[in-house]
Amino acid sequence: MLKKIDHIGIAVKSLQDALSMYKTLYDLEPIKIETLKDKKVRIAFIKLGEVLIELIEPTEPGVGRIGEFLEEMGEGFHHIALRVEDMGAAMERLKQISVHLDKEPRDGADASRVAFIDPIFTQNVLTELVERQHEVNGKWAD
Amino acid sequence: MLKKIDHIGIAVKSLQDALSMYKTLYDLEPIKIETLKDKKVRIAFIKLGEVLIELIEPTEPGVGRIGEFLEEMGEGFHHIALRVEDMGAAMERLKQISVHLDKEPRDGADASRVAFIDPIFTQNVLTELVERQHEVNGKWAD
Repeated sequence: MLKKIDHIGIAVKSLQDALSMYKTLYDLEPIKIETLKDKKVRIAFIKLGEVLIELIEPTEPGVGRIGEFLEEMGEGFHHIALRVEDMGAAMERLKQISVHLDKEPRDGADASRVAFIDPIFTQNVLTELVERQHEVNGKWAD
Repeated sequence: MLKKIDHIGIAVKSLQDALSMYKTLYDLEPIKIETLKDKKVRIAFIKLGEVLIELIEPTEPGVGRIGEFLEEMGEGFHHIALRVEDMGAAMERLKQISVHLDKEPRDGADASRVAFIDPIFTQNVLTELVERQHEVNGKWAD
């Protein structure tokens, strides 16, 4: 059902500060930066091996899910995303065993389709299933 | 400096319950279970692609770092571990740029050597550097 860990989502107050840290400490740079206006976030993807580190900054302090998360919890780990080949089949399997998750996939960053599982089923680790048409790649910033 | 994400550490109250979840939801099983008596934890490794999910249970409720973490924070994400090829060189690089981390590597699970970075430098994501002689593999439980 699962192919790999797709990404680790980290909520940050400042994308610029976080990217500076990844460059300074580990010599890592983003492969893509994208704004999701409807979700009120700006996202930078850093590739490390086969996994992406997804740094998520609210477009304004306190707005959207990530803005609210930062106000409540501060910076830090936000979610893990697991890559599935077939989102429909994966969601159907989970629904059949009474796991609560999004009813329908939503649009995610970089033209992905995503669905979140209720963290009560996953030891409180917010878990996203993600299906992608292609790997995130290319140096591109908006 | 970094090769890949080595593992994602998740603190759980019951290894048995967590393993049952990974089997039921994702059809994933542990490749190794290990007790670290000095750290008062029992650890199960689940392999997903090139990354391990490290489920960490305290040997008794409330004891050790993980026991205390669970009492304070509840179950959930605990740390991310980044694989380095040369622990000495990685630690030296970080010390030279005034990043606070363990003075000396400690012994980790499966004969690894590990060092933790002060999370104040990493957007509050507890980060471990890990050097391994070999990949964790083999079905073995103690």
